[in-house]
Amino acid sequence: MRRKGLASMAVQSAEAVTTTPAADAAPASVDLGPAKGLSCRECGEHFPLGPIFACELCFGPLEVAYELPTGDPEALRKQIEAGPDNVWRYAPLLPVPADVAGKPNLNPGWTKLVKADNLARELGITGGLFIKDDSGNPTHSFKDRVVAQAIEAARAFGFTTLSCSSTGNLAGAVGAAAARAGFRSCVFIPHDLEQGKVVMAAVYGGDLVGIEGNYDDVNRFCSELIGDSLGEGWGFVNVNLRPYYAEGSKTLAYEICEQLGWQLPDQLVIPVASGSQLTKIDKGLKELIALGLVEDKPYKIFGAQAEGCSPVSTAFRDGHDVVRPQKPDTIAKSLAIGNPADGPYVLDIARRTGGAVEDVDDEQVVDAIKLLARTEGIFAETAGGVTVGVTRKLLASGALDPALTTVVLNTGDGLKTLDAVAPTSQATAVIKPSLDAFRAAGLAE
Amino acid sequence: MRRKGLASMAVQSAEAVTTTPAADAAPASVDLGPAKGLSCRECGEHFPLGPIFACELCFGPLEVAYELPTGDPEALRKQIEAGPDNVWRYAPLLPVPADVAGKPNLNPGWTKLVKADNLARELGITGGLFIKDDSGNPTHSFKDRVVAQAIEAARAFGFTTLSCSSTGNLAGAVGAAAARAGFRSCVFIPHDLEQGKVVMAAVYGGDLVGIEGNYDDVNRFCSELIGDSLGEGWGFVNVNLRPYYAEGSKTLAYEICEQLGWQLPDQLVIPVASGSQLTKIDKGLKELIALGLVEDKPYKIFGAQAEGCSPVSTAFRDGHDVVRPQKPDTIAKSLAIGNPADGPYVLDIARRTGGAVEDVDDEQVVDAIKLLARTEGIFAETAGGVTVGVTRKLLASGALDPALTTVVLNTGDGLKTLDAVAPTSQATAVIKPSLDAFRAAGLAE
Repeated sequence: MRRKGLASMAVQSAEAVTTTPAADAAPASVDLGPAKGLSCRECGEHFPLGPIFACELCFGPLEVAYELPTGDPEALRKQIEAGPDNVWRYAPLLPVPADVAGKPNLNPGWTKLVKADNLARELGITGGLFIKDDSGNPTHSFKDRVVAQAIEAARAFGFTTLSCSSTGNLAGAVGAAAARAGFRSCVFIPHDLEQGKVVMAAVYGGDLVGIEGNYDDVNRFCSELIGDSLGEGWGFVNVNLRPYYAEGSKTLAYEICEQLGWQLPDQLVIPVASGSQLTKIDKGLKELIALGLVEDKPYKIFGAQAEGCSPVSTAFRDGHDVVRPQKPDTIAKSLAIGNPADGPYVLDIARRTGGAVEDVDDEQVVDAIKLLARTEGIFAETAGGVTVGVTRKLLASGALDPALTTVVLNTGDGLKTLDAVAPTSQATAVIKPSLDAFRAAGLAE
Repeated sequence: MRRKGLASMAVQSAEAVTTTPAADAAPASVDLGPAKGLSCRECGEHFPLGPIFACELCFGPLEVAYELPTGDPEALRKQIEAGPDNVWRYAPLLPVPADVAGKPNLNPGWTKLVKADNLARELGITGGLFIKDDSGNPTHSFKDRVVAQAIEAARAFGFTTLSCSSTGNLAGAVGAAAARAGFRSCVFIPHDLEQGKVVMAAVYGGDLVGIEGNYDDVNRFCSELIGDSLGEGWGFVNVNLRPYYAEGSKTLAYEICEQLGWQLPDQLVIPVASGSQLTKIDKGLKELIALGLVEDKPYKIFGAQAEGCSPVSTAFRDGHDVVRPQKPDTIAKSLAIGNPADGPYVLDIARRTGGAVEDVDDEQVVDAIKLLARTEGIFAETAGGVTVGVTRKLLASGALDPALTTVVLNTGDGLKTLDAVAPTSQATAVIKPSLDAFRAAGLAE
């Protein structure tokens, strides 16, 4: 496929859309199932399906526009339930071809929704508490969900190389998915990333390029590359494939409701990095209501940030509509986006649904990781510590109602952020191999 | 519950069994579903259900004896398929009460059986190659399966503390499962274990005791503790609960066959540490045949070891029935049991089914980890490198038939053994953030 710079492609698309409806404008060869075009989240302008991500008219973010199934919700529900134990059970609601389950993909999703009765007792929640535990995904973070969608878009658009800028989780998810799906991968990371994250990203055999600079430098470099002929044929999952990629987070909403017996939860606590995940979960819930798959009722969405990177919670607290960028300094590195693209939408959703956006400091993050581990045997990455910690804080402030059904997201695995808990998670005692020594340690009960 | 030393308990049991059938001898309060007693694998003597593991008469290992469901296989198959997406779908075939799915447990299992077409192409397998990927379990190793059974036995026997000796994976699995199931845990590890493994075991909040000595010293200490009043009320998952614990590996056999559409694979490649897993998978396959859940046909079982700890493959090669202990020296630490208890049974099964036991060296283990990652996006721990490496070696020697359906086990997660691949999994290039620098690196396509 022939690619040009982003600007010229977007112009082409905008022109195309003036003469034909988006649904018809997509090239016949692009089959992304119910996805029939892209629409601007700001001005509503339509564009045909393509590797574009910003509106030519207003520079707003583009998102996938669907022709979702109409007809009997019961039939759709049955179809979904008979589908595979992964995100593709929701293929009729995602930007993927109907035969997606037969294509090579890591097939993430359908992770556990854990009824967390022990944690509920500790927190005083009586209405039912659930942890949606995405550490069960193939590379152990929710990133597998979004990359899985990007892979199918990349296939449809004829890309042969998959790429991204990443500080860790995404690099591994792209490397793994590309390997299985038969793409070359070339991902970009800051050159001084922790050794463990480098290994995890490199082991899948794709190219891994360390950029001398910080994450912002990596991002700027990737934007340059997309505009240059050097990047021709490259799908950047979180840039030019972002509209498709982002839709993967909707599957969290679908799974939570299906696992609750096709019911909406009353309250959700969701981490906020770029804000995309929270925004798409709200979109997914609204789709389920519109499709008649769940009964319509109010739900509240709560965003969770780390104090050391809290641009959205700060704006929420201050009553602002604008999110002022911050320079991140927190152990919750997977949430450390100082200038979150979807921050204003997060504010809208939290306010519209009667939720809130709150933050916790690093010490509270560590405490919450250990609380979740101690009560439910779930070892969360720092982002999970953020959501559990914020849940505790919101209960204390009265913003979360303990009598309502509450779902808290854990989006990653503690094995990836061992450093956060290492100082306080050590052997209780070190003893000589003798019963006397054990007796002296006072650990027998 | 009142416990005495192992020997006296076993005597009690042996006496009981002389007067009443095992099925009736179990105390009324012990409900472990279809498990009706224990039987000696060597002499066949029966014992009632209890926290014992060695035959009083011949010191042979005890294993669970069942009254398995009789009647229509189709009805049983339907019951299983309607069950939960975890090991408890097979509750009618496991030593657990029928209502087990409602009890707090990590609910492992129902991990992915990945059709590995890319790897099959590289290896020249034409009959279908599948990876049973147990890195998807809650603590990312197959140990969750066995610990889940031990938890239910511990509950039935009234234990309040769960324990084990471990070099890593098991410590984490026990800590996590105990936390969720409401047991105290106190696990024992060599004091000089890698930091990461210590953190993973400690984070769940149970007691973690470092023993000044090696794994053998830890084991000896645990045996002493079981015989002493200090260990009263303690369930050691891999010692006095071992008969129940070990049954968890049967679920790998059940899942593989169900995921193949209720069919036996032709060939299985299984890692060998103590040999228990391979032995129980064979037991599980035979049960499925006996129950009419799969059509009876021959299958071959292959055992995989690391050259640096290859007591069973050495005995197989030499045509011996006796397994001579070795001092382990391999990067595949989760398989490094120099004196494998079930080694002779592994030899029996490999010979009876027409399989083999083979080993690969550490370099081949690393190559195989990277081969699997590069082709299928699965990052295996060293034990997975052993099975994939042995698969390749057995294909080269002609022992494995490339035209037959082959299932290879990956029993753990690469995140736990990063050191094995770190030296050869690094950034392809480190560059300044400029297109010129990228062009010079020669990575653009």
